[in-house]
Amino acid sequence: MDFTSFLTSLGTSFVIFVVLMIVFAWLSSRPGNLVVYYPNRILKGLEPMEGGKKTRNPFSWIKEAASSSERDIIAMSGVDTAVYFVFLSTVLGILVICGVVLLPVLLPVAVTDDGGKSQTTSKGTFGELDNLSMANIRARSARLWAFFIGCYLVSLVTLILLWRAYKHVLWLRAEAIKSPDVKSEQFAVVVRDIPPVPEGQTRKEQVDSYFKAIYPETFYRSMIVTDNKEVNKIWEELEGYKKKLARAEAVYAGSKTTAKPEGTRPMNKTGCLGLIGKKVDSIEFYNEKINEFVAKLEAEQKVTLREKQQAAALVFFSNRIAAASAAQSLHAQMVDTWSVFDAPEPRQLLWPNLKIKYFERELRQYVVYVIVALMILFYMIPITFISAVTTLKNLVKILPFIKPIVRITVLRTVLEAYLPQLALIIFLAMLPKLLLFLSKLEGIPTESHAVRAASGKYFYFTVLNVFIGVTIGGTLFNTFKTVEEHPNKLVSMLAASLPGNATFFLTYVALKFFVGYGLELSRIVPLIIYHLKRKFVCKNEAELKAAWAPGDLSYGTRVPGDMLIVTIVLCYSIIAPLIIPFGVLYFGLGWLILRNQALKVYVPSYESYGRMWPHINNRILAALILYQITMLGYFGVQQFLYAPLLIPLPLLSLGFGFVCAKKFYPSFQHPALEVAAHGLKEVPNMELVFRSFIPPSLSSEKIEDDQFEDASSQVSRSTSFV
Amino acid sequence: MDFTSFLTSLGTSFVIFVVLMIVFAWLSSRPGNLVVYYPNRILKGLEPMEGGKKTRNPFSWIKEAASSSERDIIAMSGVDTAVYFVFLSTVLGILVICGVVLLPVLLPVAVTDDGGKSQTTSKGTFGELDNLSMANIRARSARLWAFFIGCYLVSLVTLILLWRAYKHVLWLRAEAIKSPDVKSEQFAVVVRDIPPVPEGQTRKEQVDSYFKAIYPETFYRSMIVTDNKEVNKIWEELEGYKKKLARAEAVYAGSKTTAKPEGTRPMNKTGCLGLIGKKVDSIEFYNEKINEFVAKLEAEQKVTLREKQQAAALVFFSNRIAAASAAQSLHAQMVDTWSVFDAPEPRQLLWPNLKIKYFERELRQYVVYVIVALMILFYMIPITFISAVTTLKNLVKILPFIKPIVRITVLRTVLEAYLPQLALIIFLAMLPKLLLFLSKLEGIPTESHAVRAASGKYFYFTVLNVFIGVTIGGTLFNTFKTVEEHPNKLVSMLAASLPGNATFFLTYVALKFFVGYGLELSRIVPLIIYHLKRKFVCKNEAELKAAWAPGDLSYGTRVPGDMLIVTIVLCYSIIAPLIIPFGVLYFGLGWLILRNQALKVYVPSYESYGRMWPHINNRILAALILYQITMLGYFGVQQFLYAPLLIPLPLLSLGFGFVCAKKFYPSFQHPALEVAAHGLKEVPNMELVFRSFIPPSLSSEKIEDDQFEDASSQVSRSTSFV
Repeated sequence: MDFTSFLTSLGTSFVIFVVLMIVFAWLSSRPGNLVVYYPNRILKGLEPMEGGKKTRNPFSWIKEAASSSERDIIAMSGVDTAVYFVFLSTVLGILVICGVVLLPVLLPVAVTDDGGKSQTTSKGTFGELDNLSMANIRARSARLWAFFIGCYLVSLVTLILLWRAYKHVLWLRAEAIKSPDVKSEQFAVVVRDIPPVPEGQTRKEQVDSYFKAIYPETFYRSMIVTDNKEVNKIWEELEGYKKKLARAEAVYAGSKTTAKPEGTRPMNKTGCLGLIGKKVDSIEFYNEKINEFVAKLEAEQKVTLREKQQAAALVFFSNRIAAASAAQSLHAQMVDTWSVFDAPEPRQLLWPNLKIKYFERELRQYVVYVIVALMILFYMIPITFISAVTTLKNLVKILPFIKPIVRITVLRTVLEAYLPQLALIIFLAMLPKLLLFLSKLEGIPTESHAVRAASGKYFYFTVLNVFIGVTIGGTLFNTFKTVEEHPNKLVSMLAASLPGNATFFLTYVALKFFVGYGLELSRIVPLIIYHLKRKFVCKNEAELKAAWAPGDLSYGTRVPGDMLIVTIVLCYSIIAPLIIPFGVLYFGLGWLILRNQALKVYVPSYESYGRMWPHINNRILAALILYQITMLGYFGVQQFLYAPLLIPLPLLSLGFGFVCAKKFYPSFQHPALEVAAHGLKEVPNMELVFRSFIPPSLSSEKIEDDQFEDASSQVSRSTSFV
Repeated sequence: MDFTSFLTSLGTSFVIFVVLMIVFAWLSSRPGNLVVYYPNRILKGLEPMEGGKKTRNPFSWIKEAASSSERDIIAMSGVDTAVYFVFLSTVLGILVICGVVLLPVLLPVAVTDDGGKSQTTSKGTFGELDNLSMANIRARSARLWAFFIGCYLVSLVTLILLWRAYKHVLWLRAEAIKSPDVKSEQFAVVVRDIPPVPEGQTRKEQVDSYFKAIYPETFYRSMIVTDNKEVNKIWEELEGYKKKLARAEAVYAGSKTTAKPEGTRPMNKTGCLGLIGKKVDSIEFYNEKINEFVAKLEAEQKVTLREKQQAAALVFFSNRIAAASAAQSLHAQMVDTWSVFDAPEPRQLLWPNLKIKYFERELRQYVVYVIVALMILFYMIPITFISAVTTLKNLVKILPFIKPIVRITVLRTVLEAYLPQLALIIFLAMLPKLLLFLSKLEGIPTESHAVRAASGKYFYFTVLNVFIGVTIGGTLFNTFKTVEEHPNKLVSMLAASLPGNATFFLTYVALKFFVGYGLELSRIVPLIIYHLKRKFVCKNEAELKAAWAPGDLSYGTRVPGDMLIVTIVLCYSIIAPLIIPFGVLYFGLGWLILRNQALKVYVPSYESYGRMWPHINNRILAALILYQITMLGYFGVQQFLYAPLLIPLPLLSLGFGFVCAKKFYPSFQHPALEVAAHGLKEVPNMELVFRSFIPPSLSSEKIEDDQFEDASSQVSRSTSFV
């Protein structure tokens, strides 16, 4: 890549960014789009735009985002989002400090030397960047000392800011946990691996007597986990019919207002997808169906509560300290029985995973790890195979009906160009979902934990395949084989190939922030989908609301993406310091734009009180260590005699990670008692706490308030007398 | 070694054993020796010999030991000793089962083959053993299948018996912990890493308010850990003078009964060791000294309680569940503050280690690990150096006063023969103490934990240096260098050298059990020391009692010794199955003789409720894995094509260890709540519980009962008004 095409690429990205900004400014002010650009505010019952529409200029969002405090973020989007911003601002801080110190020093040092022409920091003839990088320094030159000191500076700044950030996140977490509001999850623990029910006892009696003996004063009540698969299915069908009924009524009401005052009663066919079968009156039909399913649901609820009890339970305590202490204590002598963890928010609980046994969970975990490891190493094999098979010719053979399409020349050309990549593109798009699915297979009991696990896997995938893959070139598997035979080669291989890819990564980062964040802010895709749905699909309010539902920040995939940039920028920070401003722009723009999105768009789907942070911290450290080791290798390549003086750096990073893991991590696993001991502003209504954990498919409006308990106690009675 | 000398060696050992048995039978029945052979019974206030002296024949101890139940052992010597016997009987069980199955099969299979003459299981010409071992099998012979199946048998039997043993020990531990007797350590936790005292509060107020907030109902009281170095010194001096006074009075009383009725008042010199200085009347002098030191002690006690408070405390709870749960909960957000563990028995607490800070402990641990690793690898270097320096010639130069001794020819010869080994002998004798000292340096807070840590280090030392060292020959360091360069060579090196050392280890095991256990039972050395002391040193009852104080079973050094035998026997069990009966004899005799010693001699110095077991279990597993890997290597040496089929074995062992660590280990770290929730037979007297933790140097008879508390609360008052 030469300098012109580098500039062209940068320029194009920038133009796209500017266009997207203008589009955003224009679209977001149109009233019809408010639900796409301000859903979080609307759902919270706030005015979409602060201070009304008139006082706003198109760029006031920048001021609003920049001036918003951490408290605003927590109020609007929760602690998890605030922690994500701690991550962004920490990395931004590191890069700004390093940039301010390093750029004025390293660039002149590099540009005034003239010995490194034998090396290059760009494939091709991009000499201008070479002059600004370490590649321009003669081997063994004393000028390398400047870069050497730079290495130490970057490491120390990173560690110091990480330390401060960890402490800050810990404080955020503590503040949230000790808040005087009653949060039902703080009064409950989840018990798994309950041993078989003894003769003459029900599951509920077993659990109650066990916990009453240990917590005579603070035990409140237990809820046995049931297998809700069947009841959920019925409930979902029922909800589906309710929606369809509402929709049919809306259509009917709509048709009434026009020409015929009695309206056209909507009709539908009863068969598959409403395409075949008998034609019936929709409203009548759905009403019948609803009645049928309500009865079915009630019957199934009883059966579920009575007969589908699992070896897991939720146990409720009447105060926070008891629950916090119970969640971290060893209850049974055999650790694989009565194992306990602190309850997450009710919405996060993955009920089907609760019943999985201790060692089955362990086994599943390792099996999933092996699958993921194989996937990371060998994902190219099936994709190459599929690409080879899915040529147009083959496709036509298998799917004869696409023949007419293939005949059109333009389409044919496009298809032939993209088909080889199609499998890869689909795979990469599906990957986060696939990893989340695999993580849930591990038997992880909460949504947020599964997201963390998936995010970790995604991180390894991107760093190993994108960063190391692109750098070294060729598939990871080949590298892996070489490395296995000569373990020490990895470092020198990385170090030798790094400089050659500087330009590639510069443009990559630029593309990411200009186009990526431009699309993020302008929300073009959700906007189009929303308008299409509104026009052609949605018939009533509920459906419309579903159409603009914003989703959450999805930091399960966002963090690994950012982390890849962190890795790239850190690894090049000394070799080609010019990458630092690009990193600053990425994290600066990201901070600003996502701040806007967090305040106005995304609605968090759960709250884990910043449990993501230890993972973020460790992955930044991993990136730092990778950087330190490659620098060690690169100084070796540059024949710098004092290169071994860099060895303390990775050791320091490891020590830092160790200290963090020891000092901070446990209070991310469990709430510390001193935190849980803070007072509440009101006596908790334990009944409400209890009911908040009843899954919607089991709580029926028709059944009286205490029915849930009754149903269970009926079970007790009926089975204990059998 | 040829067959004759092998038999001679065995015979000699056996003769020594028989002689020692006869000596024991004769000496133990003499009334004057009862305190040496029955101290545990005497200290417990029981009749030294069960059923009186007359009904006994000299070998009735065998019947008594064999018929004693586990309950007897726990009553006489505690759970730790019972767990030690679980270890002995488990290994014994493994060896008996394997012996019964393997010997009748493998020996005929080996002896009827004739192809292995190229190999040998003994250095020299000991063909008789060769015929009975795997070395007699031709390479690639189908007969190897018998040995192959033997490998699986030994592994499976070991794992099954270990599993049963672990469950049994867990049960023993639970029974002991849930016993209805009040044990003061079950009501206390130790708190370390208390943050600096806030302005205007005393340490005690800080601790009390912190725990009262978290445990408003169950918190009883706290005891601040103080720096007792000074007060301990004074207290020991005082106790010394008290002993000397008692002795002087005994001498005076003794002199009175003889010729002069007024007696000779004993005199002593005040200077160093009583050799120089002014001559004074002993009784008067010691009385003066005692008065002086009592005053000093009281003053120092006050100063200690007031001014030498450390950042650690004991916290007492009014019930067992609260203490058990507090010991395993995270109290502070920062894990390196307010860290907590369950209190050990008061006598086990290592007060000086309590104040060491969290990360200092971590650091100390790693430093000690490095020192021990260096010691294991390089211990021969300083010893060789010292041996080279300490020739007689050099010694005479340094210590001229030994010249007359050197002139005696006999002594000279003996000295010249033993001097080279002297450094090694002294080093090996000191090693357990040295390792215990190093373990305490780690900052470990309890005696039993320090013993476990030292025992682990000793295990690595013996297995690595004795077993692998002897087998491979040469120093471990040379091996280490080879292994580092070619990691796969270790296995084949071990496998190739193992058979050659079979005879050496056979005689080693025989020596160990015949001579070792013979000496153990006959207690010749303690007997001689006791009689010498009684004759020349002891003047009163207290001193006499100190002279026959039996000490404990000291399994810190015993277990590693046994473990070496386990390793040897397991590793040779298939190659030279003849070693199995030797192993059976070792553990059978050991079980019997130590049973006698546990019931009658040793007095346990602490009780950790079997916390040694997980370590024992893991080390047996380590020995098993070593055996499995060497067998894999040896089958390779024998060119057995199906050798890779042994690979599942080490994996199985690792999996077993993993499952044990997950399933059982945590309840050895902390008492499970379901166990602690068992009722007590009486309401605990919390005052007594509290007082039992006051170190003797701080509890003075003169001070009133509640003085301890008062002293501390005075401090509170005096400092809080400053």
